[in-house]
Order: sequence, then C-alpha cells, then structure tokens
Amino acid sequence: MPSVPMHSQIREIVRRRILDGTYAPHSQMPSEAQMMEAFKVSRITIRQALGDLQKEGLIFKVAGKGSFVAKPKAFQSLSKLQGFGEAMAPAGYETFNQVLSMRRTSAGELVAKRLQLSLGSPVYEIKRLRYLNREPISVDVSYFDVALGERLAQEDLATRDIFLILENDYGMHLTHADVQIEAISADESLSRHLRTAESSPLLRIERLTHADDRPVDFEFLYYRGDAFQYRLRIDRC
Amino acid sequence: MPSVPMHSQIREIVRRRILDGTYAPHSQMPSEAQMMEAFKVSRITIRQALGDLQKEGLIFKVAGKGSFVAKPKAFQSLSKLQGFGEAMAPAGYETFNQVLSMRRTSAGELVAKRLQLSLGSPVYEIKRLRYLNREPISVDVSYFDVALGERLAQEDLATRDIFLILENDYGMHLTHADVQIEAISADESLSRHLRTAESSPLLRIERLTHADDRPVDFEFLYYRGDAFQYRLRIDRC
Repeated sequence: MPSVPMHSQIREIVRRRILDGTYAPHSQMPSEAQMMEAFKVSRITIRQALGDLQKEGLIFKVAGKGSFVAKPKAFQSLSKLQGFGEAMAPAGYETFNQVLSMRRTSAGELVAKRLQLSLGSPVYEIKRLRYLNREPISVDVSYFDVALGERLAQEDLATRDIFLILENDYGMHLTHADVQIEAISADESLSRHLRTAESSPLLRIERLTHADDRPVDFEFLYYRGDAFQYRLRIDRC
Repeated sequence: MPSVPMHSQIREIVRRRILDGTYAPHSQMPSEAQMMEAFKVSRITIRQALGDLQKEGLIFKVAGKGSFVAKPKAFQSLSKLQGFGEAMAPAGYETFNQVLSMRRTSAGELVAKRLQLSLGSPVYEIKRLRYLNREPISVDVSYFDVALGERLAQEDLATRDIFLILENDYGMHLTHADVQIEAISADESLSRHLRTAESSPLLRIERLTHADDRPVDFEFLYYRGDAFQYRLRIDRC
C-alpha cells in the first residue's frame, strides 16, 4: 500500500480532534511550533496540513493570533421549500432578522422578467440581514409587487419568516420555488454586513417562489461560505 | 417613485446588452472612457456599474486589457442524480475528463466514515479534471473500495461518466446520492487546475452515491464559481 504523505496524516489526525471535540469550536489551535514538536515534522508540513483544513473551513486564522477552530456549518435541507427561520428552529438554532432597508424601486431586467412585469415597473424591495445564533449568516434581498411589499413592510419581519406571513396571515398558497445556486466573492457591502473578509466565498441563491403557480417573491440570498451549507438527497430516477 | 441611482440604471442597460448578445461572450467591453462619454457620467459611476456586474460574474477583468463579457454559466439540474457528462450532453455541451491521478491510498476519517470502512482501510482514489467545451470546469476527487476502484482505473475515464460505467458495464443499480453544497475559496492546487485566480470562489460538493442503498462512490467536486451553477425546483410540501 502506498504511504500517505506526512501532511495528510497530520491533517487527518487534526481533523479527527476537531470533529470529536478535542479541539472545541472557537478554541485556539496549538501553535505551529507546538505542532512541529508534537508531530516531529517541519514547519512546512504543519502549514500544509493546516492549510488544507483552513480551505475546508474547519479552522480559520486570525492575523497575529494563530489558528482557531471553526464552528460546525449550519445546514438547510433543499428537499422541501422552507424559510430560513422555519428550517433552523427545529435544529435548535436561534434566528433573527435585521431589516436593512425597505423601499419602492423600479424593476431591473432580471426582477421584471422573473416577476413577469415590464422593465421599470414599480416593485417593493426588502433587504434583510439574517442572524443565526446571534451571528450574521446571510443577506436576503427580496422583491414583491408593490401592494404585497408595502403590506409586508408593516409586519414583524425581525422574527418572522416572510413565507409564514404569506401563508398564515395572507392565506396565500405557496407551491414551489425555482432555485439557482452558485459561488461568488463577497463585495464590499456584503462582506461588511456578513462580517467576513472582502472577496470571501459566498453561496449565492436566486429563488423565485410561486403561490398558486404565479411568481410572488423573487430573492437573492447571500450565505457566508464558512458558516452554511445546503444538503439534499437526489434520486437516480 | 424613488429615482433609481445612476449606476444601477447603467448596470441594467449593460446587463441587457450582455443578455441579449449585443455584447457577445468573450468580446471586449467598451473602455471606461468610452462609457463615461456614452452615458455622460463620472468614472466612479461606471466603475460601480461594472463592479456590480463583475461580482455577478457577467463580466471579468483582464489586467491591463479592460473588461470582457463572460460566457453564460453552465448549469446542472439537481432534481435527478446524473453524472456530469450525462447531464451536459443533452444541452449540446462537449465534455472531456483528464485523469490527474489514480492510486491506492488509505481512508481518512471522512472517507472511512462515508464508505463505512474503518479508519486507514485501503481505498482507491481517482482525481479527474473535467472540461466543458474544452475549458476546465471542475476537479472531482472520487473514492471507492479498492476492487471497484482498480477495475474503474482500467476503463475509458476520459470520455465516460463513472455512473454510466457502474450501471451499464458493471450492472450496479444506483439508487440515490446524499449531497452537501457549500462555497469555498480555491487553494493553489485547485486554482492551478481550474485556471482561476487563487482564492476565487468555488462550489464544493460532497456527494455519496449509493447502489442498492449501499454507499459505493464518495466524491468531492470543486466547480468554478464563475462558470457553473446548480438549478432545481423545490416543492413547498
């Protein structure tokens, strides 16, 4: 059997200690010097092992302070259409939304197309910063027709999901959403709100939610790459 | 109705010209000076508009040469489990796989857990660089038990999907996959293979494919964020 490179062996040992809680979330990792001594290897080997774990998001570096253990990523299932609060509550997570802005604006090309309006039609835009366990996890930018948006603007958007307001308060019958998922770099505004480094990786979601098969809610969701993942089961046929 | 900021108006005009093909994929955008003249606005306004489009991946900058129009992102549906070649062929895309390495190795923590082996068990690893229309789009790292992996290593992996070999040649009955999707930054090795800048955003997929409900193929897929997206429809209940 071919031998496993030393940095891979160390990476796997460190990974196990993170996953089994020996190194607890947010705790400081041993220094490079301590690890060189413990594993009897060179600094470059330690750096390769830690670099791999950093790229995977299991640890993060703080300039001048060393490496720290990241928290486990929160995840949301894609097998059922759910609002963020709705999806996170059963897992014991606390969620909260900060409304960043609410305004009438005019529909750009993409918003108009998705909501089946003509270019430049008035639409209502709601921007929210969503928190998971008191830390920012996503920026959600949602577009509605003006009447619906202005009605939503009166609601308690800080603690309630828009999906649940639409269904439970307004009696709308949400049927499905069309979703696109990609990876982008955070721009200045997103990184500031999400408290990440500029250009850090984000999951970008375009989601068009339908009620009775008419498009009613078109959104851009920007999730911190280091804190969130989607999960789903896909059948072969 | 509130007025739309000038840079947003310009962004939408430019977006429309990209989406309707006025500015063709890979063509050079007008210079900042030309756009300042055409739109009668300041350089900062043009930069804001182009910066937004760059973050969305519609245009990209080449140092010293200006901005260019990006190609449309390829997308794969998540509603059905498919190999990459299988999913892309009906859309008229040409796919090709370059085998980067094939080797016996020993299962680390995660690979062992997913394939239900004990830590350090021998496994077979196949690394492939996947091309879409002759450009690299993803790095796939796949793990199999040794007998299956060594058998696969004899096959034409350059042009065939592993899923189709498993089903059509080996008579395995693929049932489903469990999938995790997140956003990460490219490390040196991934950015070199994918020909992107280091730290550029990637979609990272963990996929565990089952045959007759036993896990048989555990993979890490790293897709270029600027070239690929997933799409799916999610039902409310």
